Amino acid sequence: MAEFEKPYVLGMDIGGTNTVFGVVDARGNVIASDSIKTQLYTKVEDYVDAICAKLIPLIESVGGKEKFRGMGVGAPNGNYYKGTIEFAPNLIWGKEVVPLAQMFTDRIGIPTALTNDANAAAIGEMTYGAARGMKNFIMITLGTGVGSGIVVNGQLVYGHDGFAGELGHVIVRRENGRLCGCGRKGCLEAYCSATGVARTAREILCSSAEPSLLRNIPAENITSKDVYDAAVQGDKIAQEIFNFTGSLLGEAFADFIAFSSPEAIILFGGLAKSGKYIMDPIQKSLDENVLKIFKGKCKILPSELKDADAAVLGASALGWEA
Amino acid sequence: MAEFEKPYVLGMDIGGTNTVFGVVDARGNVIASDSIKTQLYTKVEDYVDAICAKLIPLIESVGGKEKFRGMGVGAPNGNYYKGTIEFAPNLIWGKEVVPLAQMFTDRIGIPTALTNDANAAAIGEMTYGAARGMKNFIMITLGTGVGSGIVVNGQLVYGHDGFAGELGHVIVRRENGRLCGCGRKGCLEAYCSATGVARTAREILCSSAEPSLLRNIPAENITSKDVYDAAVQGDKIAQEIFNFTGSLLGEAFADFIAFSSPEAIILFGGLAKSGKYIMDPIQKSLDENVLKIFKGKCKILPSELKDADAAVLGASALGWEA
Repeated sequence: MAEFEKPYVLGMDIGGTNTVFGVVDARGNVIASDSIKTQLYTKVEDYVDAICAKLIPLIESVGGKEKFRGMGVGAPNGNYYKGTIEFAPNLIWGKEVVPLAQMFTDRIGIPTALTNDANAAAIGEMTYGAARGMKNFIMITLGTGVGSGIVVNGQLVYGHDGFAGELGHVIVRRENGRLCGCGRKGCLEAYCSATGVARTAREILCSSAEPSLLRNIPAENITSKDVYDAAVQGDKIAQEIFNFTGSLLGEAFADFIAFSSPEAIILFGGLAKSGKYIMDPIQKSLDENVLKIFKGKCKILPSELKDADAAVLGASALGWEA
Repeated sequence: MAEFEKPYVLGMDIGGTNTVFGVVDARGNVIASDSIKTQLYTKVEDYVDAICAKLIPLIESVGGKEKFRGMGVGAPNGNYYKGTIEFAPNLIWGKEVVPLAQMFTDRIGIPTALTNDANAAAIGEMTYGAARGMKNFIMITLGTGVGSGIVVNGQLVYGHDGFAGELGHVIVRRENGRLCGCGRKGCLEAYCSATGVARTAREILCSSAEPSLLRNIPAENITSKDVYDAAVQGDKIAQEIFNFTGSLLGEAFADFIAFSSPEAIILFGGLAKSGKYIMDPIQKSLDENVLKIFKGKCKILPSELKDADAAVLGASALGWEA
């Protein structure tokens, strides 16, 4: 009944570059969406004003706020318990503690819940994607950074402070580890984020005389898409980059499995779109590294969320519980 | 009301050497207990017979099976979902899949639940010990092996197959790691178990000419108690052993915190009784290695379960839910 009366949720994904938001129905269709540039605003009040100027007409276009169960927001350094963004290094207006969920609840009159972007992706995957029906899985987002959303017994793991699930910052190389953006050394993110992959490309290109299509691209600009395109054409260096990256992910996943023994680890983001070129080395490394009792039990799967809508969809799924 | 009618539970701890069991009341008092030698029996039927010969009189002595809510069993390689012990390397009669919970339910007429020993310790700590009131914590058992029981949102983490929480087998040294009993290299257990500490002692004693009280003990027999006794007397080698062991634990704990952001990590077993000699190096290493957003948030605590009763108490706590 409530679903007929309130058939929609709002989803919002706050990224370092764009903030995207949309109206989503119970089947996971994005009915309408819009966006603003995140970094045009230095004050959070101006940022919220700019969103509301576009969001409120969207809400009105489908019948007004009474039609909405809630809004879910995915944001870097988002805290579910407090509805805040805390000390987000990539957000000009988010470097302190910003009570964003409350600000939106007050402005649009729709209850708003907020969590970090990888948790939002995990909820989206559980509601609409590859994790439907799963009670125990781990979502790994491979993008500018490496994030994670962990689901145990059907519930997101927020931890005692709301910040659990920072699997991009487990240490995979204790000796001579690469410097990570967090200030420590050897984090998974320093190897498997977009910049991590570009750095691996640079290192492998410099240490070899092997011809490669990747030599035509400025090394710091190499993306996982470039590596994929080269690998498809049989480029050996490209395959070596995937092998190295996949082998570190497999090592890390073996430890994650020892922690929560998930049914699946689901990969989201650029790297995850490289098909067998990244999946095969991950699986090989996982098989070599995982504890015997877990061998062959945990599936490694690509996300099934539709690309353009994934971030909004993931966040919106949180809106049903807001 | 039910508590008055069924005021007791049974707890049983199956160890490689002894199997201890007892009657426990709702306040966590062990009313009566007994034990048998685990390894005197090659067939599980004979083992269960031997337990029942001592357990049934205990049950009768407090009024019979109607007085019992349930029995909880902690066992190596115990599977909560299936009530089985599976492929336990240290149990003569447990090397295949043994449906032990069902066998006891049938024999004593009291519903029986079973889980691994570290999970049982975690439930015991949550019910009677240092984790009372905590919804998110990690129990680390430092004994013959290194085990763990993880609690998230107030629930034990069993994972999709019932075997989650093998934190003794995360890799802490990927290069030149010590061989672990599991067949892999560099596991936490290879450094922080009883044999791991003895091996560290041997390595440090061999690489140094420093005088030490520990030189009077055959190196392979050195226990954490010996190291503690020496450290108390100002022995530098003993302190170095604790520093090394604590520094690895702190590194590992930093990664565990990135996973589930627990309110506390609780240590149980021989090493945990070494007070500041082990706690200080763990805390120092944790502070140096933990991600900034978690710094200073997670307490490192010793178990508060009474020593002699701890295993039975921990297992018995599971009996209330059996």
